[in-house]
Amino acid sequence: MAERAALEELVKLQGERVRGLKQQKASAELIEEEVAKLLKLKAQLGPDESKQKFVLKTPKGTRDYSPRQMAVREKVFDVIIRCFKRHGAEVIDTPVFELKETLMGKYGEDSKLIYDLKDQGGELLSLRYDLTVPFARYLAMNKLTNIKRYHIAKDFDIAGNFDPMIPDAECLKIMCEILSSLQIGDFLVKVNDRRILDGMFAICGVSDSKFRTICSSVDKLDKVSWEEVKNEMVGEKGLAPEVADRIGDYVQQHGGVSLVEQLLQDPKLSQSKQALEGLGDLKLLFEYLTLFGIDDKISFDLSLARGLDYYTGVIYEAVLLQTPAQAGEEPLGVGSVAAGGRYDGLVGMFDPKGRKVPCVGLSIGVERIFSIVEQRLEALEEKVRTTETQVLVASAQKKLLEERLKLVSELWDAGIKAELLYKKNPKLLNQLQYCEEAGIPLVAIIGEQELKDGVIKLRSVTSREEVREVGRKAKGQRMYAILGGPCPFKT
Amino acid sequence: MAERAALEELVKLQGERVRGLKQQKASAELIEEEVAKLLKLKAQLGPDESKQKFVLKTPKGTRDYSPRQMAVREKVFDVIIRCFKRHGAEVIDTPVFELKETLMGKYGEDSKLIYDLKDQGGELLSLRYDLTVPFARYLAMNKLTNIKRYHIAKDFDIAGNFDPMIPDAECLKIMCEILSSLQIGDFLVKVNDRRILDGMFAICGVSDSKFRTICSSVDKLDKVSWEEVKNEMVGEKGLAPEVADRIGDYVQQHGGVSLVEQLLQDPKLSQSKQALEGLGDLKLLFEYLTLFGIDDKISFDLSLARGLDYYTGVIYEAVLLQTPAQAGEEPLGVGSVAAGGRYDGLVGMFDPKGRKVPCVGLSIGVERIFSIVEQRLEALEEKVRTTETQVLVASAQKKLLEERLKLVSELWDAGIKAELLYKKNPKLLNQLQYCEEAGIPLVAIIGEQELKDGVIKLRSVTSREEVREVGRKAKGQRMYAILGGPCPFKT
Repeated sequence: MAERAALEELVKLQGERVRGLKQQKASAELIEEEVAKLLKLKAQLGPDESKQKFVLKTPKGTRDYSPRQMAVREKVFDVIIRCFKRHGAEVIDTPVFELKETLMGKYGEDSKLIYDLKDQGGELLSLRYDLTVPFARYLAMNKLTNIKRYHIAKDFDIAGNFDPMIPDAECLKIMCEILSSLQIGDFLVKVNDRRILDGMFAICGVSDSKFRTICSSVDKLDKVSWEEVKNEMVGEKGLAPEVADRIGDYVQQHGGVSLVEQLLQDPKLSQSKQALEGLGDLKLLFEYLTLFGIDDKISFDLSLARGLDYYTGVIYEAVLLQTPAQAGEEPLGVGSVAAGGRYDGLVGMFDPKGRKVPCVGLSIGVERIFSIVEQRLEALEEKVRTTETQVLVASAQKKLLEERLKLVSELWDAGIKAELLYKKNPKLLNQLQYCEEAGIPLVAIIGEQELKDGVIKLRSVTSREEVREVGRKAKGQRMYAILGGPCPFKT
Repeated sequence: MAERAALEELVKLQGERVRGLKQQKASAELIEEEVAKLLKLKAQLGPDESKQKFVLKTPKGTRDYSPRQMAVREKVFDVIIRCFKRHGAEVIDTPVFELKETLMGKYGEDSKLIYDLKDQGGELLSLRYDLTVPFARYLAMNKLTNIKRYHIAKDFDIAGNFDPMIPDAECLKIMCEILSSLQIGDFLVKVNDRRILDGMFAICGVSDSKFRTICSSVDKLDKVSWEEVKNEMVGEKGLAPEVADRIGDYVQQHGGVSLVEQLLQDPKLSQSKQALEGLGDLKLLFEYLTLFGIDDKISFDLSLARGLDYYTGVIYEAVLLQTPAQAGEEPLGVGSVAAGGRYDGLVGMFDPKGRKVPCVGLSIGVERIFSIVEQRLEALEEKVRTTETQVLVASAQKKLLEERLKLVSELWDAGIKAELLYKKNPKLLNQLQYCEEAGIPLVAIIGEQELKDGVIKLRSVTSREEVREVGRKAKGQRMYAILGGPCPFKT
């Protein structure tokens, strides 16, 4: 047992080491090596028959959604989907897993965060990591060159050969419409262009092979100071200090269209053909954004880099300017709530003949938005209804189950959202209490007197007002008239 | 190379063998053994550097959904969700993967069809196989004893201690409502009870250990003849022929409540306490189904067995009576389009103290329903709109991009579903053609004359009628009045 305890401790330490490396986004090789060690230790340890303790949990990094959380999620999705439809998007869907080779080589550093399925002697599969790569695979597979679509209520893309910057501007308009409609506070959309970044690195003296790694250092400028970023570039990534300083002069700038114009005149930057193309497109983009009335929401920010390998042109990222923190509420870290950009090369990577389909798109950070909305509702102690039930069918005395079942069935058949308690003889008080807890506004009460008189009683749960006019012969229809029309009670 | 070719052939044959075994639902051990052989062969083979051919496909058993297919799917989901909400259900969601141990031991024979994730030194994970087991895990984890919920628009369950058969009857009512609303043809819901099956097997002389395997033979009676089922029971599963005949006398019967009453009097079957309980509950169930007006849709069918291990009481399965085949349409195999039952033991398997939460639920076979609806629409050559765009903003002459961008932006801000072509100078004909292809009913045309007159022209795409009254100052609002109100054109 002592040996087992020692081994268990080793497994625990090695597990922590692996998690730490993953968090630090260490190199894939290093992580694989340490994982291999962990698996070896685990094999040595073997199963512990003495404590077959079953752990009741969801996998790490995943969560359940309760009815309350789903009600919030539905509202958020509703805002997003209405916007996508307003912009004429079709919708597609793709499987939750893809062939491993479909995902390989598309995400750069992020690739090691992909979940693989176990090799069961068939195809090598991985869980999809985003919706953009499956979308590009879908376009190439179906030889589509032209589509505007959304994908599970969070990804919107426009594919096709169009005049420059018109689809790009629409993506930014969509982002602004959604973030405004969600009412989660002031936001700003940072915009940059991969070609400007690459051109800038080149004229500053960064070698081609270091573009991506320097990009990822620059991307940290929204979280840490320039000094720290410079230290990383020089100390860890071996950049000459004067090269870093030249980069620093650029990436600490942000502004509107005037900054674009100023950089177009920049004696050094204008020597890069790439950078000039990017700046020219950004100038045109700003014209369109002004026509769309959203130029005040957009900031040209030279430090915006975005991690994923597949972007080729304009890139953008929306951040909340301040969290909508209320009294007593934990402040939420300001972060990206939507992002996207142009990826003109990705579809060609899947096409056997390398035919390119230019694409531009955006992704809404729905998980982060859910948390923000959820937290705000909690702070406001706002009650969220988790059902839409309009009426509870209740009885005032015992032995009326048959009557309740008949009435509730007529209501369902008439399209009315109705419930009953699953008890043969529930107490009226319990039935009314259920309405209050679930927020059901009306209760239809059947009692001996009502049965005699050939009516049912409809009561407003909050005001306790009652009407007794509903004919029993055609209950469903009569009820429908009242429930479908204006509320019979003052509210 | 000759050696490589031989190895490739071996891998191919072994791959076919594994697929064959999986199709035949062979034992897990046998499959694992053969998969191990396959992996060994593949390792010997190694990667073939000479032909790095990239296969563009989705994983086996998965599919993409095109915009047209998604439009069908949305309509089907809409019918289902409206029904679930009408019955007062909340909604929850759970992750796409679960701890492997959560899924283990819940599905019987089906367990080997579960996809495992690769062990990356963390938790052992599997893709969820249905929504019932994750739901039970959710209840146990959150110590919930009472909930009525649905889950991704296809699973509905009622958990809680209630008076017998009331929630069960509602599940059947929901199934009938959904299948009627979908208009996919006549259907029948077969009903049985696990306790009746087990009681019947016992009095016929089947040993306890053979209940499940004999169950799975009986379940085939909807596809093959009694003779074949009997051959399997006697030949493959070692049942005495007279025992099989006794089972045959029962399982070939089906009918309504009168069959329930007849079996309650059956001198042999009534000796089984279990069977009597099941029959008593079914009698009560039929009373409630009559009050719900769906008793004519229900058939008590002693051959219905259902594969999954977790059912404990009433079970049901809806089948289409005839496919809605049209002239020239391929007939679809009649099959199950919805199913479910009572599973009173599953939550207790997750609870550390084994506390039980009785549950009853149903699952809609959405994939099969999509195919049926899709095929019917294709046969009818019905046009399915894949967007909801109300109006296309078009220009009659060149150099009007600015005006188009301003107008379309106003429309979006006014909540109108609007599009424009992403071209600087599109031809009017191309713009009208786009409307016809996409089914957009209205086109708002900006031209030089309209700009001078301070109006825009609104044209009905099909009738070509036009109105020119729309004020330019507040286009968004004016357009909204027209587009939000009754159509300005006769249809």
